[in-house]
Amino acid sequence: MAVDLRDPLRSVLGSILDEVRDRTDGEVASYIPELAKADPRALGIALASTHGVVHEAGDSAVEFTIQSVSKPFVFALALDALGLEEVTRHVGLEPSGEPFNAISLDEASGRPLNPMINAGAIVTSSLIPGDTADEKFARIRAGLQAFAGRELDVDEAVFASEAATGDRNRALAYLTRSAGTLASTAEIATTAYFRQCSLTVTARDLAIMAATLATGGVNPVTGERVVGEDAARWTTAVMTSCGMYDASGDWLVRVGLPAKSGVGGGIVALQPGQFGIGTFSPPLDARGNSVRGVAMLEALSSQSGLHLLRHRGDPLSPIASLAHEGDDLVAVLRGEIAFAGAEELLTRLAPLVGEQGCLVLDFTAVTRVARGAAGVLRALPELAGTDTDGRPRIVLRDPEGVLEG
Amino acid sequence: MAVDLRDPLRSVLGSILDEVRDRTDGEVASYIPELAKADPRALGIALASTHGVVHEAGDSAVEFTIQSVSKPFVFALALDALGLEEVTRHVGLEPSGEPFNAISLDEASGRPLNPMINAGAIVTSSLIPGDTADEKFARIRAGLQAFAGRELDVDEAVFASEAATGDRNRALAYLTRSAGTLASTAEIATTAYFRQCSLTVTARDLAIMAATLATGGVNPVTGERVVGEDAARWTTAVMTSCGMYDASGDWLVRVGLPAKSGVGGGIVALQPGQFGIGTFSPPLDARGNSVRGVAMLEALSSQSGLHLLRHRGDPLSPIASLAHEGDDLVAVLRGEIAFAGAEELLTRLAPLVGEQGCLVLDFTAVTRVARGAAGVLRALPELAGTDTDGRPRIVLRDPEGVLEG
Amino acid sequence: MAVDLRDPLRSVLGSILDEVRDRTDGEVASYIPELAKADPRALGIALASTHGVVHEAGDSAVEFTIQSVSKPFVFALALDALGLEEVTRHVGLEPSGEPFNAISLDEASGRPLNPMINAGAIVTSSLIPGDTADEKFARIRAGLQAFAGRELDVDEAVFASEAATGDRNRALAYLTRSAGTLASTAEIATTAYFRQCSLTVTARDLAIMAATLATGGVNPVTGERVVGEDAARWTTAVMTSCGMYDASGDWLVRVGLPAKSGVGGGIVALQPGQFGIGTFSPPLDARGNSVRGVAMLEALSSQSGLHLLRHRGDPLSPIASLAHEGDDLVAVLRGEIAFAGAEELLTRLAPLVGEQGCLVLDFTAVTRVARGAAGVLRALPELAGTDTDGRPRIVLRDPEGVLEG
Amino acid sequence: MAVDLRDPLRSVLGSILDEVRDRTDGEVASYIPELAKADPRALGIALASTHGVVHEAGDSAVEFTIQSVSKPFVFALALDALGLEEVTRHVGLEPSGEPFNAISLDEASGRPLNPMINAGAIVTSSLIPGDTADEKFARIRAGLQAFAGRELDVDEAVFASEAATGDRNRALAYLTRSAGTLASTAEIATTAYFRQCSLTVTARDLAIMAATLATGGVNPVTGERVVGEDAARWTTAVMTSCGMYDASGDWLVRVGLPAKSGVGGGIVALQPGQFGIGTFSPPLDARGNSVRGVAMLEALSSQSGLHLLRHRGDPLSPIASLAHEGDDLVAVLRGEIAFAGAEELLTRLAPLVGEQGCLVLDFTAVTRVARGAAGVLRALPELAGTDTDGRPRIVLRDPEGVLEG
Repeated sequence: MAVDLRDPLRSVLGSILDEVRDRTDGEVASYIPELAKADPRALGIALASTHGVVHEAGDSAVEFTIQSVSKPFVFALALDALGLEEVTRHVGLEPSGEPFNAISLDEASGRPLNPMINAGAIVTSSLIPGDTADEKFARIRAGLQAFAGRELDVDEAVFASEAATGDRNRALAYLTRSAGTLASTAEIATTAYFRQCSLTVTARDLAIMAATLATGGVNPVTGERVVGEDAARWTTAVMTSCGMYDASGDWLVRVGLPAKSGVGGGIVALQPGQFGIGTFSPPLDARGNSVRGVAMLEALSSQSGLHLLRHRGDPLSPIASLAHEGDDLVAVLRGEIAFAGAEELLTRLAPLVGEQGCLVLDFTAVTRVARGAAGVLRALPELAGTDTDGRPRIVLRDPEGVLEG
Repeated sequence: MAVDLRDPLRSVLGSILDEVRDRTDGEVASYIPELAKADPRALGIALASTHGVVHEAGDSAVEFTIQSVSKPFVFALALDALGLEEVTRHVGLEPSGEPFNAISLDEASGRPLNPMINAGAIVTSSLIPGDTADEKFARIRAGLQAFAGRELDVDEAVFASEAATGDRNRALAYLTRSAGTLASTAEIATTAYFRQCSLTVTARDLAIMAATLATGGVNPVTGERVVGEDAARWTTAVMTSCGMYDASGDWLVRVGLPAKSGVGGGIVALQPGQFGIGTFSPPLDARGNSVRGVAMLEALSSQSGLHLLRHRGDPLSPIASLAHEGDDLVAVLRGEIAFAGAEELLTRLAPLVGEQGCLVLDFTAVTRVARGAAGVLRALPELAGTDTDGRPRIVLRDPEGVLEG
Repeated sequence: MAVDLRDPLRSVLGSILDEVRDRTDGEVASYIPELAKADPRALGIALASTHGVVHEAGDSAVEFTIQSVSKPFVFALALDALGLEEVTRHVGLEPSGEPFNAISLDEASGRPLNPMINAGAIVTSSLIPGDTADEKFARIRAGLQAFAGRELDVDEAVFASEAATGDRNRALAYLTRSAGTLASTAEIATTAYFRQCSLTVTARDLAIMAATLATGGVNPVTGERVVGEDAARWTTAVMTSCGMYDASGDWLVRVGLPAKSGVGGGIVALQPGQFGIGTFSPPLDARGNSVRGVAMLEALSSQSGLHLLRHRGDPLSPIASLAHEGDDLVAVLRGEIAFAGAEELLTRLAPLVGEQGCLVLDFTAVTRVARGAAGVLRALPELAGTDTDGRPRIVLRDPEGVLEG
Repeated sequence: MAVDLRDPLRSVLGSILDEVRDRTDGEVASYIPELAKADPRALGIALASTHGVVHEAGDSAVEFTIQSVSKPFVFALALDALGLEEVTRHVGLEPSGEPFNAISLDEASGRPLNPMINAGAIVTSSLIPGDTADEKFARIRAGLQAFAGRELDVDEAVFASEAATGDRNRALAYLTRSAGTLASTAEIATTAYFRQCSLTVTARDLAIMAATLATGGVNPVTGERVVGEDAARWTTAVMTSCGMYDASGDWLVRVGLPAKSGVGGGIVALQPGQFGIGTFSPPLDARGNSVRGVAMLEALSSQSGLHLLRHRGDPLSPIASLAHEGDDLVAVLRGEIAFAGAEELLTRLAPLVGEQGCLVLDFTAVTRVARGAAGVLRALPELAGTDTDGRPRIVLRDPEGVLEG
């Protein structure tokens, strides 16, 4: 029987579950009677890689309502449909330093401060194309399904509860309507928003949804492009600065993963280019964040060194070897070459470009070249020109085309 | 004469200077008479790589007072001396959504919301060890000199002006003193702070200082460790969420580089593991940020794809080749292996670990392995155990020790 | 032909009209198209005494919508129906220092800060008994008609405009609903409120309505008691501290008359026990107060010395004469006797109460005795007891019963 | 032995003391160690009439520091010295709805919102003429002594405590200094302010000080004019809207007496033209107001009907009798004739001015005529002109000159 090499990952997730399992602080959300029925002991986590593999532990297949975790994904859909300039005419990008249900309209513009607080999320939902609440919601649902890679249901009991108790959200809708920033009637916006919040997901779904942002907009499981790369990056940026309400700054310092929580007990987090995570545990802290979800992400970030702003240690030089092949000098390059690597290449190789002979840059073992760096490197042959014999001073060897696009 | 391969980088910086050179909007800071004497046409930029090479263009050697650009570096010194828990007893980590001179004390705790606004910066200066303003400032100066890699002077005329007109800052000091969060008398804190703001630097200095944060605390030019890796990461996180005052969220979406500006006309920005940048141009916008400095960083981020949250495109697989060497199956790995790469490795190689024979993982061409990933990979041989012949099922070949530390 | 002695009063009002007639600053309210149709030149004033005589000048019979001038009167109706404790469970009594449409809910209680801002006025309307908007409005209309002493119509065009553009007011209703302080559904409250604001009145009506508060709740023209004395006093107090929005403090210092303005161009003002005033002129200042209405009230207060807190000069002694009538000593009293007068009486007459003989206090020429003073004075005969001959030491002569009630 | 008719007043004050004596809630101020030494059982009240008689009960002669009760009196001194326009360039007149130590600077102007909060009081002290703290304080002390009618001492221990712990007040001083509204250095202003707050007074002193405002600026005991009538009225207006911090609106509704409290345990209250009151009881409520002082004033207002905005009941007609004396018709007038009375006179007498014969208005029994009314009445003879026989149609009989000035 083959050893399962993936055990290490399962064991990481499992040990994190074990670490938080016995915490009993926090309260299941009760402002809606339906939410209060959630099992406080439910506990799950899932991690989806940008290659489309999903690792899970615990109650990662239990369904719960997505609630505010929907906000960044619907924001991404709005950005994708309308662009950053049009969207920011309606909602800002600044952290509010205030709780989720804060009013927080910018005085001058009437815009909600950001799309992660309720007022901004309602405006975001109103921006989704569609003339009726049904049309808007159909588009939102289709978008969230594409993020998750499967069909999502509405929990009609929760929806009915949200609609029955949602006066504060209606107030926020009317307020933005009167400020000129809501893009539909208040009734249409809140109905679409309440339905959006009532969609049910699992921790596994959230992991895939987050991973879709982490890939720059392509669902790594289905391969479908859900939103453009710009929309994914802008959304990730807003999650970074505003995703955890009035604790966003602290979260960025201590955990360092763009994230968003919901009162249903779910949290998503991600690292661009790496992975998406979904967690599920209903009891919430005073700020409305899942107590054990927060604890799992803190543990994961700290134990596995996933902080977005962590310095990863000095990489080896991108120049693996330098050797003469006949008259040519061949530099074998390796690894990922971003801005810093390109800069090192140029600095170290500059003295080697001579009167005669050719410098060959071999990119065969290079796995990725950052966009800005690629442009600079592609321009080198023309820049170096030819030697006295008319031969090119620099030649690029790039069999896998890592310098393209 | 040899071609200088570094021309592409110089040309990037030079073309960015050209792009913004003719902008005449903004006003030189005038709240202090000395600052109003700055030449509005001065324009410079410098980029320091984490390998310690500095590229410069324009007036990158012109001296100006550091002002608020000092805030993150002194914050890093305080974190390094006292740790995150002690420092955050005195100053918060949350974006304020308010201007630089906002009062912004947290009602419950009396802490300034973050160390990038004046109130928080004054508290930060008060935290630097020392019984007198002179002792505190001596330590601050020594720290900033270590960041810059050279001696820094005080502009005594600016200092005298700051001290003469600094009533609002004195108010902030007394306010935090009365709230119990200032760690010295108000007089000591403001004197140290005013002197700190009056130190003179160049765009080149700022680039090296930022690069020191980008390396995780080691000055890449002098090789001196200035602060620990944690202090560097925490500081970078606070710059990410709070560095551009009430435009920090917008900045993160559009530019995506942790940054900090000062009314002297300087801005620092950085990308962890990659580079530090310093810009200089005195005219400021309404928020107190250098107009052309902002424009240069926007152009650089957009043209060179430097956004922190940009998805860099799918990397090549970390598995360069798979080949039999006798009974062994050798997987030649390559590039940087972070969480996602390790996950891919495990997923793809799991089916290949067989009853007989050995899987050799060759890390020779791997340039860097992320901490969390390294731990998982190091554990593989023990996990896989031995085959029926008693030979190890997995062997790691790591001649350069990329799996260590 | 008889001379009309009332000419002086007409001339006061007329000269005030002349004084402000040529001011052309301010803008007619335009947020509702119907309001923008008002004639900016219309200018009227009326003064109703607490004896029920109304003096008028200019366009005092032109109808306009009452708008926010309705707020204190509906508040008085709510106080009268429910009492101060119940009403203040729903709306506060504190000045907000904020504009008319401010959100200004008290954080802890969810109550609007006061009933003169829109949020508080909507809550006030919701408190008026009635299960439907129609029932509530019927009661509000009946109450306002009783204040005015005539039937009032709804301007249906303005009502339709209010309802069509009232999203901010709907937001305030939903906000207070979600905070638990609105006493009906948001829809019922806003409909009743919009209809209330659309009732049409004249400057003459406003003068009578204000005079009804000035008498302690009895319409001085019709003689009908509209609200109780407590409700009238409490309402006048709230007008004093909150009636002119964020200029209420300044108004109290400079003008010193409890007042309330509306965007229809009307203002009411009053002095308890003296008079009510109504003014009408549509152009508004930046705060939403009628420019010429404010100017008329400033002129009237300043020229006629009507400031509520003005010291009226030392009155003559309340003791008109002291004379012996046989054995008795008769003190002929006069004027109004409030706390200070009673205190003077007691202090001056104490030494005159002797072993023998009777002190007669003659109240025939006294016009009014304040409540607190009357109680003290009525108690004197019993307190003084009888002299050695068994005759009362003090006798009260009060043919018109000014010491009663 | 003569009966003391003043017993009723003593008994009112005494019974009010008894009513509150057993309340033990509230805490003696402890932010300054010296204040914490106050005896929590001390309880006193004094009432000074505008005729200069002082009634006292309980510990009305116990000295305590005046603290914030000094604010309105120093404000009156500033108004008297500089006028309303100059003073309001530095400090506003609007209620803040915030606690005593709120920052509350108006954003646009940099002015503290009103002179009853600390920031505004410090600015007020800075406005008092004088180049040094000593000079300013000497003038402040002289002014407060004139209000009290006796010499006042500084409690040096309290002053030292205030100065040692006054960092928040220093912060407010520097803040207003930097906003351009403080009229001296921060050090001078706070020193003068701390000394002002440390002056010791008794409840009796406070009653006389308040009575001095109630008379329009003349100390009723010493007869000295301390401030002008305008300054007294303006100050009373600010006490009305801002005197009880964030409970000022509630206070005006329920108690209806302009008032000001201090953390030393004192409260002043007054009614213009009637009386001043001082109370003393050290334990404070959460807002910093003396618990039993508040309770005594509530009881006094409610039991004795002293509410400023109380309708006093319909007065008797100012026309005591109408009788023919030969050809003349004599109207005997009585009482106080304010605006309403004059209006009634004119309205009722108009039909009686005939072709022939003279109407005599006899003011002998009139105790006071309000300024605006007097002007109208004095003008009547000229207005009425002469009859066909050349005799005046109206004659005024005013032996005591109540129509003058």
